Amino acid sequence: MRAAILAVGSELLGTERMDTNSLRLTEALESHGVELVEKRVVGDDEARIAAAVVDLLGRVDLLLLTGGLGPTADDRTREAVAGALGRDLVPHPEIVDAIRERFAEMGREMPAVNARQADVLAGARVLANSRGTAPGQLVEESGKALFLFPGVPAELLGLLESELRPWLATRSTTVPVRHRILRVACLPESEVEERIAPLYERWGRDGIGLLPSPGDIELRLSVPGEEHERLEAMEALARRCLGEAVYGEGRASLEEEIGRLLSECGLTVGTAESCTGGLLAERITRVAGSSAWFLGSIVAYADGIKERQLGVPRQLLCEHGAVSREVALAMARGCRERLGCDWALSVTGIAGPGGGSEAKPVGTVHMAASGPGGRERALLRRFPGDRRMVRRLSSQWALDLLRREVL
Amino acid sequence: MRAAILAVGSELLGTERMDTNSLRLTEALESHGVELVEKRVVGDDEARIAAAVVDLLGRVDLLLLTGGLGPTADDRTREAVAGALGRDLVPHPEIVDAIRERFAEMGREMPAVNARQADVLAGARVLANSRGTAPGQLVEESGKALFLFPGVPAELLGLLESELRPWLATRSTTVPVRHRILRVACLPESEVEERIAPLYERWGRDGIGLLPSPGDIELRLSVPGEEHERLEAMEALARRCLGEAVYGEGRASLEEEIGRLLSECGLTVGTAESCTGGLLAERITRVAGSSAWFLGSIVAYADGIKERQLGVPRQLLCEHGAVSREVALAMARGCRERLGCDWALSVTGIAGPGGGSEAKPVGTVHMAASGPGGRERALLRRFPGDRRMVRRLSSQWALDLLRREVL
Repeated sequence: MRAAILAVGSELLGTERMDTNSLRLTEALESHGVELVEKRVVGDDEARIAAAVVDLLGRVDLLLLTGGLGPTADDRTREAVAGALGRDLVPHPEIVDAIRERFAEMGREMPAVNARQADVLAGARVLANSRGTAPGQLVEESGKALFLFPGVPAELLGLLESELRPWLATRSTTVPVRHRILRVACLPESEVEERIAPLYERWGRDGIGLLPSPGDIELRLSVPGEEHERLEAMEALARRCLGEAVYGEGRASLEEEIGRLLSECGLTVGTAESCTGGLLAERITRVAGSSAWFLGSIVAYADGIKERQLGVPRQLLCEHGAVSREVALAMARGCRERLGCDWALSVTGIAGPGGGSEAKPVGTVHMAASGPGGRERALLRRFPGDRRMVRRLSSQWALDLLRREVL
Repeated sequence: MRAAILAVGSELLGTERMDTNSLRLTEALESHGVELVEKRVVGDDEARIAAAVVDLLGRVDLLLLTGGLGPTADDRTREAVAGALGRDLVPHPEIVDAIRERFAEMGREMPAVNARQADVLAGARVLANSRGTAPGQLVEESGKALFLFPGVPAELLGLLESELRPWLATRSTTVPVRHRILRVACLPESEVEERIAPLYERWGRDGIGLLPSPGDIELRLSVPGEEHERLEAMEALARRCLGEAVYGEGRASLEEEIGRLLSECGLTVGTAESCTGGLLAERITRVAGSSAWFLGSIVAYADGIKERQLGVPRQLLCEHGAVSREVALAMARGCRERLGCDWALSVTGIAGPGGGSEAKPVGTVHMAASGPGGRERALLRRFPGDRRMVRRLSSQWALDLLRREVL
C-alpha cells in the first residue's frame, strides 16, 4: 500500500509553523509497512486543495489529509474534497447536537458558524473526535481510501489512535519493515559508500541508505519483516566493511557511546579546549548521568589561561604557536594532571573567520588525548567550512579520538 | 510571482527529519513579496522527482528545489530534472577540478563518485557553493525559473544569501514588506503580549508577531514598504513598553550583544560552570572575534574541581550544597580571581533527570555574576522542562544577568 499526506493550512506555508502532524502519521504508516511516497502542504484555497486531492488520489492508495476542518470561513477542506470527489456535503443534525453539547459543557452557546463542521461527504464514515468539535471523515472508493483529520495536533492524535491504527491493522497486508541503523564517525560519505560496496554487490541498493551529518553518518539497513536473517547478514557485513568506524547503533550519539565505554571501565575524563570553546564538555554533559565519568573542563581561550590553568610552558607557545601538536599534547597532559582525570582530551585550532595564515589556514586543528600509563595520541586535521562547522567537526574528531583510544 | 518549494530526500519522508530548509527559503520569498503556494517532499526517486517538477512548473513561476545533489547513487535530482525539462546533463571539468581541490585541501583524494556532482543541466547557470562540493544550478525558461540547491542546511543557506536573494531582488516586482525585529530575553510570551498591548490598541494585530524560543522572543513588526514612518513609531513604542528586556535587533544573538557591550567597554569575561557543562562558554565563543573579550571557562562538574580549580571552600559545599547561592557566588569570585577577568559568570544547578530533591527539584539553578569593584549579583530560578531545556534556559538567564550587570 502506498500513501501520501496532504496538510492544509496557510499558516503552514509561513516561516513560523511546520506540519509536524505528518511525523506522527508517518510513524503509524511505517509500523504497518505502508510506504509514504509524498508529503504536501497547500494553503486554505479550495481550488488548490481539490487539485492536490485529485492528483494524489491518482497516484496512491491511501491519502491522509489534515487541517481545514475548522468552523471559520477560511476552512475549505470539506468543500474542496466534495468538489474533487464529486460528492455532496450532507449536514448531519446529530453532529450539530454533539457540538452544541460540547459548548454547553463549557457554559457557552454554540456559535452559528460551527454548524459547518457537521457537514459530511456523502457516503463517508464519520470518525468521532472526542477532543474537539470537527469529526474526522473516511471515504473509501474503488480500492482507495481518503481520511480527513483535524489539524489540531491533540485532536489528530486522538483520531490516529482510535481510527487510523485500527483501520491500518485490518487493511495493510504488507509485513512491517525492519530497520537496523549503524552510526559511523569521522568518515566522508563517499568513503563509507566505497567501503560498503560489497553490500550493494550482494543485495543491491534497495534497503541500504546513508544519511550524513557533519562527521557522523547514519547507515540504514532495512528489509521486509520476514527477512530477519538477511538483516543480520547485512549488519555483520557492514560492520566488517567499516570496522572501528562504527561507533554505535540506532539513535545513540558519539558522546553517549563514550560515556558507556568510560563507565564500563570505571574511567574519568576531562577536556582542555581552545577553539571549541567548551563544546566538547557541553556535548559530553548532554548525556544524563555524565557526572559519573566527566570531571570538568578548562576552556583556555586566552594563551595566559593555557599557561596558568593548564601549565603549558610559555616557551612551547612562543616556539610552536598555540595551534600546534606540541601545545595540544601539553594541554592534554596539563588537564589530566590538574583535574586528576584518567583521560584528558584537548583541542586547539583556528575556527575562523580570522586568525588563519598560509602555514595554518582557518580549519587547522590539533587534537590530543592523554591517558593512563603515559599513553598519548595527537591528531592534526584541516576542516572545511565556517566557524560553526570547524568547531562542530573538531568536537566530533576529538571525541572519536578518545573513543578509539579508550577502545 | 508565485513560488513552490520541492524538497527531495527519502529521509524527509521518515519520522526523524523534517524539511526545515523550507523555512529559510520562505523567509527570503516573503521578504520579496513572493507568494509561496505549495511545499512538497518526495523521496530519492527519479520518476517521482521528475513528475513533481513538471507538475509544479506548470503552476508556479519559481520553483526552489533542495536536496539530492550528493555524490552517491541515490542522489537523483540532477537526472530527474534533466528528464523533466528535456535537457542534457553536461559534465563540467572545471567543477571536477574545484571538487578535487576541496578534497586536496583536506589532505584527501577525491573519490571517483564525486565527479557526478559536476554534471550540470544544459543551459543552466552554475551557482558556486563555497561550503560544499555540489554547486547549485539555475535554469530560466519562458518566464519561469528553477533553482537546484543542495539539501545540506549550511550549503543551502550560503547559496540563499549569495544567489537567491540577489536574484529575487532583481525579479520581484512587488513592493517588499519592511520588517523590524526586536529580540527580547527572559520574559514569558504572555508577559511580552501584555506589555505590548499599547501597540495592538494603536495599530491592531496585523503586522505584529511574536516568535518565541526558550527564553528568547522575537517581536516582528512589519508594514508595507512605503509606510516607513509607521514602522519607526511601532519600534519606538515597543522599546518603551519592553525597556531593558529588549537586548538586540534582527538576527543578533544574546551572546553577540554581550560581546558588543564588553568590547565597547574594553572588559573581559570568564565563566565557571557546573550544570551547563560548558554551554555558556560555547555560546560566548560562537561569536567570531570573541577572543577579544572572553578569556576562558572552568567547567567544574565534579565538586573536587570546584574546590581545587575555583577555590570554593569545602565548608560551603558541605553546608549549602553545590547548588546554592553561596556556591554560585564563590564560583564566580574564584573564576574572576583565577582567570583574571573583569567579569565572571557562574551557574550551578540540577539539570536532571536525576539529582532532584524536594527542597531542590530538577530545574533549580543558581547563577551569579561578579565584577569590578566588588559588584555581585546572584539569581535563583526554577526552570521547567527536560535536561536540555534546563541547560538552555540556564545559559540564557545567566547571559542576560551578565548583560544587565554590564549595562
